[in-house]
Amino acid sequence: MLNAVKRDIPEALLAGRTGYQGKYAKDGQSLHKAAPTITQALKPQKSKLADSLKAACEACGAHDGMTFSFHTEYRNGDKVAAMAAKVLIEDLGLKDITVAATSLGDAQANMAQYIKNGQITGVQTSGVRGVIGEAISAGELQTPAIIRSHGGRPRAIAAGEVHIDIAFLAAASSDAFGNASGIRGKNNCGSMGFAIDDAHYADHVIVVTDTLVDFPNVPAAINGVDVDAVCVVDQVGDPSKIATKEARMTQDPRELMMAQAVAKVIAASPDFKDGFSFQTGVGGPSLAVNRYLEQYMTQRQIKMSFALGGTSKAICDLQDKGLVNYILDTQDFDQGAVAHFATHPNHLECSLDQYASPANKGAFVNNLDFVVLSALEVDVDFNVNVVTGSDGVLRGAPGGHPDTAAGSKCCIIVTPLTRGRMPTVCDAVVTVTTPGDSVDVVVTDYGIAVNPQRQDIIAQLDAANIAHTTIEALRDKAYALVGTPAPLEWQKRVVAVVEGRDGSIVDVVRQVKPFAF
Amino acid sequence: MLNAVKRDIPEALLAGRTGYQGKYAKDGQSLHKAAPTITQALKPQKSKLADSLKAACEACGAHDGMTFSFHTEYRNGDKVAAMAAKVLIEDLGLKDITVAATSLGDAQANMAQYIKNGQITGVQTSGVRGVIGEAISAGELQTPAIIRSHGGRPRAIAAGEVHIDIAFLAAASSDAFGNASGIRGKNNCGSMGFAIDDAHYADHVIVVTDTLVDFPNVPAAINGVDVDAVCVVDQVGDPSKIATKEARMTQDPRELMMAQAVAKVIAASPDFKDGFSFQTGVGGPSLAVNRYLEQYMTQRQIKMSFALGGTSKAICDLQDKGLVNYILDTQDFDQGAVAHFATHPNHLECSLDQYASPANKGAFVNNLDFVVLSALEVDVDFNVNVVTGSDGVLRGAPGGHPDTAAGSKCCIIVTPLTRGRMPTVCDAVVTVTTPGDSVDVVVTDYGIAVNPQRQDIIAQLDAANIAHTTIEALRDKAYALVGTPAPLEWQKRVVAVVEGRDGSIVDVVRQVKPFAF
Repeated sequence: MLNAVKRDIPEALLAGRTGYQGKYAKDGQSLHKAAPTITQALKPQKSKLADSLKAACEACGAHDGMTFSFHTEYRNGDKVAAMAAKVLIEDLGLKDITVAATSLGDAQANMAQYIKNGQITGVQTSGVRGVIGEAISAGELQTPAIIRSHGGRPRAIAAGEVHIDIAFLAAASSDAFGNASGIRGKNNCGSMGFAIDDAHYADHVIVVTDTLVDFPNVPAAINGVDVDAVCVVDQVGDPSKIATKEARMTQDPRELMMAQAVAKVIAASPDFKDGFSFQTGVGGPSLAVNRYLEQYMTQRQIKMSFALGGTSKAICDLQDKGLVNYILDTQDFDQGAVAHFATHPNHLECSLDQYASPANKGAFVNNLDFVVLSALEVDVDFNVNVVTGSDGVLRGAPGGHPDTAAGSKCCIIVTPLTRGRMPTVCDAVVTVTTPGDSVDVVVTDYGIAVNPQRQDIIAQLDAANIAHTTIEALRDKAYALVGTPAPLEWQKRVVAVVEGRDGSIVDVVRQVKPFAF
Repeated sequence: MLNAVKRDIPEALLAGRTGYQGKYAKDGQSLHKAAPTITQALKPQKSKLADSLKAACEACGAHDGMTFSFHTEYRNGDKVAAMAAKVLIEDLGLKDITVAATSLGDAQANMAQYIKNGQITGVQTSGVRGVIGEAISAGELQTPAIIRSHGGRPRAIAAGEVHIDIAFLAAASSDAFGNASGIRGKNNCGSMGFAIDDAHYADHVIVVTDTLVDFPNVPAAINGVDVDAVCVVDQVGDPSKIATKEARMTQDPRELMMAQAVAKVIAASPDFKDGFSFQTGVGGPSLAVNRYLEQYMTQRQIKMSFALGGTSKAICDLQDKGLVNYILDTQDFDQGAVAHFATHPNHLECSLDQYASPANKGAFVNNLDFVVLSALEVDVDFNVNVVTGSDGVLRGAPGGHPDTAAGSKCCIIVTPLTRGRMPTVCDAVVTVTTPGDSVDVVVTDYGIAVNPQRQDIIAQLDAANIAHTTIEALRDKAYALVGTPAPLEWQKRVVAVVEGRDGSIVDVVRQVKPFAF
C-alpha cells in the first residue's frame, strides 16, 4: 500500500502498525508505557564496581538473543559501544544479538564484522554511517535495520517496541554506585541526554567510566537507582573526535550566502520576536545561521528564550553574549560546547524523551518556533532524505530532523542545489526520512521555495521583499545544471525500515545493486 | 499468623503478600515496574493552562472510584490537597475516592468529613495526624488505611500497588507547559522530592501553581513531558506554616544532654571519619545533634560527604561552614532550608525513590552511615512506634524512619524515657512501625541501650568509656518512674495497616475503644 508520502510499504512489514499517515495522525492517542524488570537492592551497599566489563555482563544476565544499547555522545571518539559488542560477542560468545544504538558510525566499526558473521542479527538506530551502513545496504544483516529519529527512539522504548536487556552507558565520571555524568571526568562529552531514557527503561544498566569519583557524584545524568554495575576502563572516549568537520564554522561564501538567506526568512516571521525559540543542526550553512541571526537579534533588541537540541559553540557564544536565556542540550557537537555545558548554569541537559518523543505529554520540539536543517535531497513534495546517499547506501542519520520539523512552527531546509554531479532538489528522494508535510521552506544557493501549505510564510516573504520561487523551478534548475539523475537500481530485499517518529513506516531501504562491498 | 516482629496479622489482609520477614528479606527480588497510560501530544503546543481546577480534572477524566495523589511539602501550609479534594468531591460529586498522600494533617482537615460521609473510601499515606487520624481510628473509613514509609510509598507506586489516576502537584512556579519547581515562586517550598515519583507514575498530572513563569522553567522538579494541565490559583501554600514547633532548635537542657550523648555515640564509631554520611529527623533532640556533631567534626578535621532526607537550617549552616559536601534534600523543614535550597549549588533535590525506595537498584539510604531518629515508643525488642499515640489513635508518621533505619549502618533512636505519665521504653509498643532489627542504639535521658545484635557498637562504646545499659533496664526504670501502663482496649476492626517498606505487613491498627470522636 502507498502511505501518505506515496511510498509502497510491503504488507509484511505492516503487521501491527501503519504506514505514515501524516505528522499529527497519532496526536491524542493513548499509550501504556513500558517499564523494566529490575532487581531490588535493600541492603546497605558497599559498591557496584565490577572487576571487568565481562563480569558486569555476566552479573547482568547477558544471554543469546539479547538487545543491548549505548549512547553515542562521544560521537566519533566513542570507545564503549565497540568494547561492549566485543565482550558480548567475542568474550562471551553470544549469538543473535540486537543493537539498539543512538547512532552507528566509524567508532562502532567492529560491529560490521559481527553483522557479516551473523552474530549481530538486529540493528535499531538513528544514524548509520561507514562500514556498518555499507554492510546493511549489501544485505548482510539478517533482519531489516530499523532507523528511527531521536524522538522516535525514546517513543519506541516507551512503547515497549524496543526492550533493552543491558544498556552500556559511557560516562565521563561516576561514583561506585552509578551516579554518572558527562562532565567532571578526564574525558568529558557534556550532555548525556541520549543516555537518560535507556537508564530508565533498560532491565540492566552498566555505567562505564574512566573517572571514578567520590559518592555522591551529583547532579547526575544517570542516577544510581537505575544502575546495576559500574565498570572502570582506561578511556571511555576521545573528546577530540567529538567534533566532526561539519561542526566547524564555515568560511565558504556560498554557504554563508545561504545562511544569510535563512536568517532573512526567519527575521521576516512574526514569530521572530522576543522570547522566540530556535534550533539548528550541525553542518556548514545551518551552523552559520547563528551568526546572521545575532545581527537581527541585536538590531531588534530581542532575545531567544531557548535553543534546543544538539549544541555547538556558536550557540554557546550567543548565550554568553546574553542573547539566549536557556540552552536545552541533548548532545554537544564540539569541545567548546562541552566546556560551556560544564560551567554555564542555564546550559542544561535534556533527555531525548524531553526533547522530541511523541510518547509523552509534549516534548520541547512542540514549543519550537524555528528549526534550520540540512538535507541530502529534497523532492518536489518537500520530502527530505538524510539517510541514504545518491547511490542508495545507508550513510546518514535522521537525528532530530523529523521531530523538530514536525513540532516546530517553521522548518527551514538549507542545502546547495547540487552536490558534485547530483541534484539536491529532485522529483523524488531516494528515501523519505522527513515527510514533506513537516517541511516549510527550502533555501538553496539558487533560490528559496516555500511549501504551498504555508501561504502565511509566502505572504511574509512577499511583505519583506524576499524573492522566492517554486520547488519545481528549483528542481528544473538543478536538473538543467547537472542533468536528470538516472533511477537507482535496487534488489527486492528490504534492508532497512525508516520508522516515523510516531511508529508508522515512512519508507523502506532496499539492498543496492550492483554493490561492491 | 505472627510475623517477624511477633504481630498477629489477620489472614484476610495477607492475600497476595507476606507479613514482615526481616529487613532484607526481599533484597535481590525482581520487580516488574509499573507505568502509566498517557495521552500522546504531537502537535505544536500553545499552552496547557486550564481555566479552573474543575476543568483540569474533567479534562483528565476524573471519575468515581479514582485515586488522587498530592505532595505535602508545604506541610501545615499546604492548600492544594484540600482544594483538589473539594473539587473532586463537592464540585464534581465523585464517589468512592482513594487518597494517595505523602502525609495527612491539619492542612487536609476537610478530608475527615469526606471520610465520614463515605465519599473518601480509601487512604494511603505516610503520616496521619489531626482529625483525619481521629476519624480513621474511630472506624469512619470504609477500608483500612494503608500507612507506608517514604520509601515504601514509591515502592508501592513502582510495583503498581498504588495506581494514581490524577496527581495534583503544588508548585511554587511553573510555565504553561508544566515545567514546575518548588522555588522561583511567590510561595516556595524548596525541594519537591515528594512529588517527582507521582509525576512519573500517574496517568494524569495537574500542576497547581500561583506563579506562572516564562517557558522554560528549568531546571524543573516536574518535567512538562509528564504534565497534562497547569492550573493557576491564588495561593498554593503558606510557607510560614512549613516549620512546625519541632523544627526549632531546642534550648531544653534535657534534650541537649541527649543530643550530646548521641554525638558521643557517633564519634565513637569507626565510620565517623572523613566522608561519613548522616541524617537526622526533625524534633528537638535529633536536630540538636547537628550542633554537637559539628564540634567533633572540627576537632577531628573531617567533613560529611552528604546529609540526606528532610532538611533543616541547622544542616544548611553546617554546609555553609564547609563541613558538608552535599545535601540530598527530599523536603525542607523550615524557611531557612527553603532559601538555602534555592541558592546553594550543592544542596540538591532528591526524589523519594532515590532517597529510600526498595524498588530500585540502591537508594541513598543504603549508603547512609548514621541516622538519628525520634520515637513515640521503643520496646524491649527495639521495635519503634511513630504512628499511634499512647491512646492508640493515629497521630504520627513513619516518614523515612523505617527506611533510614534499615539502610543505614547505625540507627540511633533518641527519646526521653518518659513523656508525661507514659513510659517511652516499654514491653511492647502499641504499633510497630520500625522493626527492631533495624534499630541499633537507643539514647534516653536515663541512659543508652545497644541492640545486642550489634556487639560491634557495644565494643565501640566500651572502648570510648561511654556508659550503656540494657533496654530492659531502661524499661524497668521507665516503669518505676511512671508505672506500668495498662493495656489498651481495642475494637476488633482493623482501621489501618502498617506496611513495611518492602510491602510486607508489619502491624495493624485497630479501632479504639472507648473513643469520643
